[in-house]
Amino acid sequence: MVITISRETGSGGHTIGKLLAEKLGYAFYDKEIVASAAGEMGIDEKLILENGENMSDQDYIDMKSGFIPHCRKPEVPYEEIREAQDRVIMSIADKGNCIIVGRGADFILRGRSDVINVFIHADMEHRVRRVQRHEGVTGQEERIRRELERKDRSRTMYYRYFTEEEWGRAENYTIALDTGVFTKTQCAELIIRALELRAKTKSV
Amino acid sequence: MVITISRETGSGGHTIGKLLAEKLGYAFYDKEIVASAAGEMGIDEKLILENGENMSDQDYIDMKSGFIPHCRKPEVPYEEIREAQDRVIMSIADKGNCIIVGRGADFILRGRSDVINVFIHADMEHRVRRVQRHEGVTGQEERIRRELERKDRSRTMYYRYFTEEEWGRAENYTIALDTGVFTKTQCAELIIRALELRAKTKSV
Repeated sequence: MVITISRETGSGGHTIGKLLAEKLGYAFYDKEIVASAAGEMGIDEKLILENGENMSDQDYIDMKSGFIPHCRKPEVPYEEIREAQDRVIMSIADKGNCIIVGRGADFILRGRSDVINVFIHADMEHRVRRVQRHEGVTGQEERIRRELERKDRSRTMYYRYFTEEEWGRAENYTIALDTGVFTKTQCAELIIRALELRAKTKSV
Repeated sequence: MVITISRETGSGGHTIGKLLAEKLGYAFYDKEIVASAAGEMGIDEKLILENGENMSDQDYIDMKSGFIPHCRKPEVPYEEIREAQDRVIMSIADKGNCIIVGRGADFILRGRSDVINVFIHADMEHRVRRVQRHEGVTGQEERIRRELERKDRSRTMYYRYFTEEEWGRAENYTIALDTGVFTKTQCAELIIRALELRAKTKSV
């Protein structure tokens, strides 16, 4: 089975992915590891790392309108980067039993019956507090909030460009959980139970 | 505890609500029961029944732009209906241990720590099949699909008008589940486990 985890920045989705990998004995892939897998396949790691799930508003508008053929930085067609990343994600998924965090993997693997797609989110207050803890700072709420909003926005633009759908809609995920309510360990438990139940269900 | 269930039509959310009520021994409220509770509070049942979670595109546009002060049918300000329904839902929630299906109850009860908000969805194919079974018909996929899309749309307009947010975004729910993947019994099991874990979590 493959578990994809999409997450709002600061919601703890990355940590939940690691917890799941440990508990299930699954391989764990985040952006660094996906980029490294790309490197092994002869694809430029840096391109994947920097352009694998983000897009600026201006690039989105200009590319959609045909004003520019590809994003401003780097000067490589986004579609090429995307196709390379698709190949990497599919090859990872084909190996089975793994967790893939981010990278629009839910969309790339859509329609496969061996995948469950997880979305992890939390309200802004919880996310800001998590970033404060992570950075070891107090205060600076306004800066952190703006940065989180910018990241959400750039993921939304990326997802919209490639899927023509809205990022974060419940209907695109097998299970979505709120880490403002559940702890990360509790989320891992619920996802593992969902995975077990999913394996039992015949008609999918 | 209060469990609100928002659902795409045909996703089985109503049945899951009933299952949960049985398993947990909670009171169950769907639109008929909410309307009847409204009746007991001296509020017109029919208004609540017909206008408690739906709004046409045209009413949305005309009301937002100030072109008309309230929806076309009935000629009662939507806000009044809404406020009456809010009072009913809050009085139901105050009694505790209940399931409330639909009616935007997730939004009305937002911020309360004794509530978990559930969203139930499924892909269109599963929903069409469920409606076929429910109506005892074969074929007629196109009619059913159009009707489901119309209902989703009218819930979206209603939610947008009153909350200024998009209906069906994962971030508005404590847990969201796909009945195209899980059976209704499996969903009930996952929600009950979520409820138990929620009760354990202190910091909310």
